[in-house]
Amino acid sequence: MNPEVTEAERVAKDAVSQHKTLIIVGKCSVYYLGRAKSKLEPGERILIVKEDGSLLVHRSVGYEPVNWQPPGCIFHVHVKDNLLEVHAVRQKPPESVRVLFDKIQMVFAMSLDDTGEFSLYASEEDMHKAILLKPSLLEDGFRPISYEKKIEPGFVDVYGVDRDGKLVVVEVKRKTAGKEAVIQLAKYIEAIRGKADRKVRGILVAPSIAKDVQRLLATLGLEFKHLDPKKCAETLRRAETKKLDEFFKET
Amino acid sequence: MNPEVTEAERVAKDAVSQHKTLIIVGKCSVYYLGRAKSKLEPGERILIVKEDGSLLVHRSVGYEPVNWQPPGCIFHVHVKDNLLEVHAVRQKPPESVRVLFDKIQMVFAMSLDDTGEFSLYASEEDMHKAILLKPSLLEDGFRPISYEKKIEPGFVDVYGVDRDGKLVVVEVKRKTAGKEAVIQLAKYIEAIRGKADRKVRGILVAPSIAKDVQRLLATLGLEFKHLDPKKCAETLRRAETKKLDEFFKET
Repeated sequence: MNPEVTEAERVAKDAVSQHKTLIIVGKCSVYYLGRAKSKLEPGERILIVKEDGSLLVHRSVGYEPVNWQPPGCIFHVHVKDNLLEVHAVRQKPPESVRVLFDKIQMVFAMSLDDTGEFSLYASEEDMHKAILLKPSLLEDGFRPISYEKKIEPGFVDVYGVDRDGKLVVVEVKRKTAGKEAVIQLAKYIEAIRGKADRKVRGILVAPSIAKDVQRLLATLGLEFKHLDPKKCAETLRRAETKKLDEFFKET
Repeated sequence: MNPEVTEAERVAKDAVSQHKTLIIVGKCSVYYLGRAKSKLEPGERILIVKEDGSLLVHRSVGYEPVNWQPPGCIFHVHVKDNLLEVHAVRQKPPESVRVLFDKIQMVFAMSLDDTGEFSLYASEEDMHKAILLKPSLLEDGFRPISYEKKIEPGFVDVYGVDRDGKLVVVEVKRKTAGKEAVIQLAKYIEAIRGKADRKVRGILVAPSIAKDVQRLLATLGLEFKHLDPKKCAETLRRAETKKLDEFFKET
């Protein structure tokens, strides 16, 4: 703890040259120059340089990094006037982040051994919720009206109106949709067509559809929309962190 | 380095009870349960618990956290079967992240002293670029055609078509727009109206407009659109990290 600047320099140089994960906690300023320009006045923060050449600067609060760079940065580490500078450079587009430490509380470097798989799970009900939350998952302009709505012979998963005002009946499966799913959807459409005063579309939503039922689907005038349960899970997960979205989504 | 699990437990308990920043590097599994469900198989990672109760789990590659929680989590730390568990709980919505370490390489806790201001800067030219990159900054449906286009008596900042097919001439100022800006815009509009075969709108874009010229703007039939240079800087900054956006923007 509290290493000398020169000791931190040695560890940091070794880390970036050997593509280790580097963590430095200390008092620093951060200067970004690229398509815009930013400056972070001195304060104690966490710098993380990852093994793929990405960079994060985290403050003591907020789950967003205050500065970051995607993978592929080239790093230059040196000490000047008793300041440790970690300088990350990207060529395309030209971007530069300079982190200047004048006091170092902790420096840590190590190759992290990490091959563990990340798996995200969503139930069929989660998929319904995700579509309600973000109707564009189904298609642009879709407006949901109801879900899990009782329509003989059962319950329609999601029910709404498309951009042209047509009714849309959605049947959701979390695995490859087979013959039963197609027939089930056809039955709902039939029941609704009798009563509706406008055109009705039936959309089968699933990560994939069995090859041998694609023709049946087409014959019945139904549509298929690819949707991954994982994407739904992410949508639900993200929906809870609006502020994070706001921070990052400014494209 | 390489602290015992019980020593890490002591540091982590102290950190979360005193709202310090906590960093643990070690081999862990991560289980998330909330609106969706996820599991991260064992591997060496960085856990950060911040002073506001936010949580981040970072892998050795990628600038996105693999798991995270926004501020306000309640933390429970304990050791069971020689595993250190850091458990973050949110009430609304109910969410839980469990990080289970079976080997710890480093543990660090400290109150970070950080009041340094973050400032993001965009020039007027950056503001033009931001509008070109994300035309909805001006208004939905706007399609830019050209920028810094020579039109006597000078150069029009941004030039395009609105959703109704009207021509739009945009004058951008990075500070409060005054009388000269309004008159400048009016001159362009006048020059273009003589030649154009359709309606022409003039929009003055700036962080604010001087009170005493609002009437002049209205009299000349021009419009004002509030736009912060900082927002433009963020837009440009984000545009370069598309992958990060993709990761976070799933609302």
